[in-house]
Amino acid sequence: MSGDAVRRSYLAGLLGQGIGPSLTPELHEREGARQGLRYTYRTVELADSRLDREHLRLLLAHAVELGFDGLNVTYPVKHVMASVVDELAPDAAAIGAINTILVSDTGTRGHNTDVTGFAAAIVDGLAGAALDRVVLVGAGGAGTAVAHALAGIGLQTLWVVDTDPGRAQRLVRSLRHLRDLELVAGSPTDLPRLTRAASGLVNATPVGMAAHPGSPVDPELLRDDLWVADIVYRPLLTELVREASARGCRVLTGAGMAVNQAADTFELITGRPADRTAMSRDLDELVAAEVGSATQRRE
Amino acid sequence: MSGDAVRRSYLAGLLGQGIGPSLTPELHEREGARQGLRYTYRTVELADSRLDREHLRLLLAHAVELGFDGLNVTYPVKHVMASVVDELAPDAAAIGAINTILVSDTGTRGHNTDVTGFAAAIVDGLAGAALDRVVLVGAGGAGTAVAHALAGIGLQTLWVVDTDPGRAQRLVRSLRHLRDLELVAGSPTDLPRLTRAASGLVNATPVGMAAHPGSPVDPELLRDDLWVADIVYRPLLTELVREASARGCRVLTGAGMAVNQAADTFELITGRPADRTAMSRDLDELVAAEVGSATQRRE
Repeated sequence: MSGDAVRRSYLAGLLGQGIGPSLTPELHEREGARQGLRYTYRTVELADSRLDREHLRLLLAHAVELGFDGLNVTYPVKHVMASVVDELAPDAAAIGAINTILVSDTGTRGHNTDVTGFAAAIVDGLAGAALDRVVLVGAGGAGTAVAHALAGIGLQTLWVVDTDPGRAQRLVRSLRHLRDLELVAGSPTDLPRLTRAASGLVNATPVGMAAHPGSPVDPELLRDDLWVADIVYRPLLTELVREASARGCRVLTGAGMAVNQAADTFELITGRPADRTAMSRDLDELVAAEVGSATQRRE
Repeated sequence: MSGDAVRRSYLAGLLGQGIGPSLTPELHEREGARQGLRYTYRTVELADSRLDREHLRLLLAHAVELGFDGLNVTYPVKHVMASVVDELAPDAAAIGAINTILVSDTGTRGHNTDVTGFAAAIVDGLAGAALDRVVLVGAGGAGTAVAHALAGIGLQTLWVVDTDPGRAQRLVRSLRHLRDLELVAGSPTDLPRLTRAASGLVNATPVGMAAHPGSPVDPELLRDDLWVADIVYRPLLTELVREASARGCRVLTGAGMAVNQAADTFELITGRPADRTAMSRDLDELVAAEVGSATQRRE
């Protein structure tokens, strides 16, 4: 067949649990369509019985055989999938968890575009933000990605706070190998003191989502020379983001990480630059449509 | 998420061996694009080590899990895949071989659109053709599909000829359950007598392909009141088709079956009518492009 007659098509997907509401598939498919690509992105909801490593190993092998170019993986398989791929990108190896698997002729390679995506969001959305002292609230998977992202772009001191002090300490221990980074684990009672001394604050907890209303930090602690980033993007205007904006803080909504992780994965899969501005507009529109339809459902 | 915000996307594929040159993927993707669908069609070349039933069963289960809406299956797995799906459409059950697997919430269902596609091609491309006495040359998988297709649209007498007389007899035996159908197995030496008495003739052998040049029937046997159908579509104008046209026969090229099987599968997968006229134009164009690029390679 004449090679020219056939445009390249792309096949990607998302493996995880509770992924039905994810906007990542739509972000990918819209960007693919915008670039004139045949780009299909599937959501693969994993049943509880399908979470063991051996099944996931076979599922990945068959995804490769069936022509997938790449996969996103999310909760609860970010760690186990890192142990199943043929090799890991350095950022993914450092964190021990992946959110992206790239398929090539030579095998499967794990990446973590939560890390690269959050870093890109900070650099792009909070250009020049001081990274000398940052408070990170939440030491779970998302917090771990945020910590690695900040470490990669010049962070000097990271204060990690979690309602589970052991989890904050574990994250701090896992970052000890990073040079030139001062690390302290704390608990929520430390937040007033830490926030007062910080140049920036990141929420990496689910607090602020519709199902977890409220703010992870007392709004009274926010002052206009503190930058504030949230990873929650539903709603985009979380209580934290609203309170911070009202007090004059520079603010990065969760859209930054959501869009940039999707854009980074899209670029890995296609080898083509993603239109991050257009993807941001798409995300805004999709989140707004959700709010609209939720309102309608309530009526 | 608002359901309206997301267009449905479709994922299909082709499992088999030697499928690199197949035009079916391109026919599907072009029709999908024409209808404004996100439609991706993957070719899955099966290694020799991947042909056992247990691997194919797991591969299908994982294709379902990974979000495939449907699959074509071809040589050499048309029979084994019929034994792996959850259920068979009546036409597929009758023939014991499938070329299409449809995925739904209730499981996998095997279909044979080689059968329905050839029948549609005859009804559409040779409307009103007499089906009282038809000579079928070639009793392999394609010949079996052709025989079932003709039986379904009113065939009265079928003469089956194969260079392997045992194979012709096996096909005839497998059709014995069909009511109101007279069946005779023969050998190539019977062709002069049978063709003389027939109203139509179908080639279901590879003879006429670039790699198998020639005509399956002595052109001297063709007369203008005999219709002639070929299943070979590369080239579209096989020696049989050219000789039959030159003698004034009504002729159906292999494009008829190729396009209609693809259109039938497309309709099963999407639930939307396919534009068969446009798909025919696509096939003509793709075959012409092949000839062009083959000519260029030779230069």
